[in-house]
Amino acid sequence: MTTRIIQYKKPRLKNPVFIEGLPGIGNVGRIAAGYIVEQLKAEKFADLLSTHFMPFVLLHQSSAVHVLKNEFFYYKAKKKGERNLIILVGDSQSIDPVGHYEIVEEILKYVKKLGVKEMFTLAGLSVGEMPEHPKVIGAVSEPELIKKYKKYGIDFDAGSKLGTIVGASGLLIGLGRYYGIKGVCLLGETVGLPIIPDPRGAKEVLKVLSKILNIKIDVSKLDKKVKEMQEFIKKIQDVQSKAIAQMMKREIKPKKEELSYIG
Amino acid sequence: MTTRIIQYKKPRLKNPVFIEGLPGIGNVGRIAAGYIVEQLKAEKFADLLSTHFMPFVLLHQSSAVHVLKNEFFYYKAKKKGERNLIILVGDSQSIDPVGHYEIVEEILKYVKKLGVKEMFTLAGLSVGEMPEHPKVIGAVSEPELIKKYKKYGIDFDAGSKLGTIVGASGLLIGLGRYYGIKGVCLLGETVGLPIIPDPRGAKEVLKVLSKILNIKIDVSKLDKKVKEMQEFIKKIQDVQSKAIAQMMKREIKPKKEELSYIG
Amino acid sequence: MTTRIIQYKKPRLKNPVFIEGLPGIGNVGRIAAGYIVEQLKAEKFADLLSTHFMPFVLLHQSSAVHVLKNEFFYYKAKKKGERNLIILVGDSQSIDPVGHYEIVEEILKYVKKLGVKEMFTLAGLSVGEMPEHPKVIGAVSEPELIKKYKKYGIDFDAGSKLGTIVGASGLLIGLGRYYGIKGVCLLGETVGLPIIPDPRGAKEVLKVLSKILNIKIDVSKLDKKVKEMQEFIKKIQDVQSKAIAQMMKREIKPKKEELSYIG
Amino acid sequence: MTTRIIQYKKPRLKNPVFIEGLPGIGNVGRIAAGYIVEQLKAEKFADLLSTHFMPFVLLHQSSAVHVLKNEFFYYKAKKKGERNLIILVGDSQSIDPVGHYEIVEEILKYVKKLGVKEMFTLAGLSVGEMPEHPKVIGAVSEPELIKKYKKYGIDFDAGSKLGTIVGASGLLIGLGRYYGIKGVCLLGETVGLPIIPDPRGAKEVLKVLSKILNIKIDVSKLDKKVKEMQEFIKKIQDVQSKAIAQMMKREIKPKKEELSYIG
Repeated sequence: MTTRIIQYKKPRLKNPVFIEGLPGIGNVGRIAAGYIVEQLKAEKFADLLSTHFMPFVLLHQSSAVHVLKNEFFYYKAKKKGERNLIILVGDSQSIDPVGHYEIVEEILKYVKKLGVKEMFTLAGLSVGEMPEHPKVIGAVSEPELIKKYKKYGIDFDAGSKLGTIVGASGLLIGLGRYYGIKGVCLLGETVGLPIIPDPRGAKEVLKVLSKILNIKIDVSKLDKKVKEMQEFIKKIQDVQSKAIAQMMKREIKPKKEELSYIG
Repeated sequence: MTTRIIQYKKPRLKNPVFIEGLPGIGNVGRIAAGYIVEQLKAEKFADLLSTHFMPFVLLHQSSAVHVLKNEFFYYKAKKKGERNLIILVGDSQSIDPVGHYEIVEEILKYVKKLGVKEMFTLAGLSVGEMPEHPKVIGAVSEPELIKKYKKYGIDFDAGSKLGTIVGASGLLIGLGRYYGIKGVCLLGETVGLPIIPDPRGAKEVLKVLSKILNIKIDVSKLDKKVKEMQEFIKKIQDVQSKAIAQMMKREIKPKKEELSYIG
Repeated sequence: MTTRIIQYKKPRLKNPVFIEGLPGIGNVGRIAAGYIVEQLKAEKFADLLSTHFMPFVLLHQSSAVHVLKNEFFYYKAKKKGERNLIILVGDSQSIDPVGHYEIVEEILKYVKKLGVKEMFTLAGLSVGEMPEHPKVIGAVSEPELIKKYKKYGIDFDAGSKLGTIVGASGLLIGLGRYYGIKGVCLLGETVGLPIIPDPRGAKEVLKVLSKILNIKIDVSKLDKKVKEMQEFIKKIQDVQSKAIAQMMKREIKPKKEELSYIG
Repeated sequence: MTTRIIQYKKPRLKNPVFIEGLPGIGNVGRIAAGYIVEQLKAEKFADLLSTHFMPFVLLHQSSAVHVLKNEFFYYKAKKKGERNLIILVGDSQSIDPVGHYEIVEEILKYVKKLGVKEMFTLAGLSVGEMPEHPKVIGAVSEPELIKKYKKYGIDFDAGSKLGTIVGASGLLIGLGRYYGIKGVCLLGETVGLPIIPDPRGAKEVLKVLSKILNIKIDVSKLDKKVKEMQEFIKKIQDVQSKAIAQMMKREIKPKKEELSYIG
């Protein structure tokens, strides 16, 4: 394969902004980006498949299946002041380190061809305990962006406390510079358990992002939405854990009896 | 290599149906597909080798060896109402996630070239305890197939209970759509221990499949056949576990004495 | 890289026999093949390097280093009845499953170009306890070879007891058929601890092989030779274990204090 | 990607010497090479990125990020007797064995094109306890170099005690011969804990190297410098450990409840 993008329709968008939200800490990024897709009724135009996702298919309620994938949507600006958007959501991130780089570079090459010069990546920031008022922490591809976005209530003073951003949200803004794309990573504070989707962190990220992009996002239905997603997300993670545990058990548990062994 | 198909003879078949049965839960798929090959006296025409199989050879009774492989057979329809068949059985599935995708895509590319537009993948479904009357659960590449195959006694209501299908049987129907091949996965219920081949789950899958394909499969000799296969299958799995355990032991057990170490 | 052969001199040999002996169970194969190289004063003509060997260099007594490698030697028949030989010995086998296939196929492609149509791979067979009279077990690429070589005291009745041959010695004869090369694997019985080189198993293998090839090998100096090799082999294995242990320790031991973590 | 060098400026240097110092035991090599870059005000001219580094970005104090990388600097000789230098420092080495080979060969190909025929790689040698007077141990790509460099106080008698040199410092001098580049590895003795940067071992390496290269390095500010670096280095290593631990936890911890599982 190894990572490939299947385009169903080529969107023609002037100066689009790219938004990424994939599964991660608290699923903050995945929830926020998925909610934007739904609220704006964004249109699907491409799938990304990769050998670096888990080798299984997901069963829908209908008994139909689909392989793990990331999906590209676009939204065409309708009012003055709005921006054209390309949004990436998905079932999974890479399950090995090498795959993270490969997938992120495929994404960057692709959105560059679609005219993207600016992006926002959405993620969660684990703070150990449930924050009372979750903040939105910011990280940037270049310092000049801080001045531009500080007014939107993003905390840009966390550089000293935090160390790194792991996975697609970090790599996209880190590697973006080699593709001429500037980026801000918005991190919503959350407890930090990957298996518990956190709508509160996602809500704060959505508030900041909708102000920046000048779009209207009705966050009142988010809690209900998250409950629906939770079941689906849990299903993926459960089976993923089980699948890997099963693989490992099968592989590393040798039989007790001592047969002769050739080597 | 990394995955390659060695064709010994090119079968010319009109509109063939592809059937896959590789080792997995209860070896249900492997047993069922292997039994079809034998009962129909299907003819071998190609081997699939892969660097994603374990790096060892199997010793036959005769002291001859062969590398792990998957094997393609074909059956040419003899009576009216029968379908031409291409059947894949084998010693092993990929031992790493990336390999699953690579091998499945090689298979799909190959059978597409042979004219395949429809497939049935056979697998086991672990239900934790020995089911009294094992059911055959179905999953499909697209919902329209449910209507077509519901009458054959397949349970298509399991989508909500089940999460995923791991390995080749799932990926084949999940990725098939990108190759224009529709598919149904037939899952025979079984206890779920990979090392115990389960003829009962396989028998149910065979009953359903022979009705769909309008072929006669005498399942009365299946139990005897499974006993013969069991020994061979056990041999592979034992040694595979041992080999990996040995590799890991050699690698992660450092010596006790503290020698100086350069880094 | 990923696996490459660097040829220093192209040997012109009529119908050469290929002999392989790499590190493995009891280092039987490595010892036997290395001893042939020395006794016949075979000439080095090529190196094989691979990214699938451990990423370190070995320090010689002289403080010079070399990367892990496999080495090709040749011996030109001097007397009537002798055969031209190509011998492969080395520091290491692949440290991952995929690499075994890759390296073995590079070797087969290369020796095929040099005119090889027949080969002997040398290995150890772990029998759990020190055998009083170590036997030489045989495995073949095709059954017809058994008749040809049975008279040399090889036990070809072990197919039922043994399951597999792991690593290069097995894969070479298993994959050889796809390159038109027939092969016999000679397995000397040994206790089976990889870190203890076993000269006794190697001695039996050498006796059988020298009869087959009609060459004179003085095995009386083997014990002394093994002691010298032992130190070198032990050094590689110690450091290999340490290196991997160190890598793993560094990677999987997280800090105790709970810092905030971004994901 | 998988490993690539991004050149910002092509240095034109006559007969440059290549110096490498990447993170490792005691960070001796990284500290020493980094200090040379600073003292000589060497100019940055290229970055090396690799999919074999951890998939995360580092956050600077400023909230800007960068992906893990290795950096090339050059220094143009200013006085008679000085040599032109190319210096490589960086955040990380490969996290998997295959990557070490790949990255080292990309470096060798690149510096060969820049005219390099001689190199010094800098590393730490773990001796288990804090050495009172850390020695500098030497290893060479070919024995003739020992005579040339013995007079600089390098201990070339350690070959028998030591076994191997793991990682870039070793592979560079081991693989250098295939690129026509001769090399010496200078190993400063240190306790051997990778997470504690050791300025004392680095100081000894710097003393030796500055004599060889005939450059002036004021080592008096090294201790202060190391304290600054320590915090940054610690941050990378902490998060790297955490990230891997988290990945593993997420993957191998299956849920307690026994759901049905398809395979």
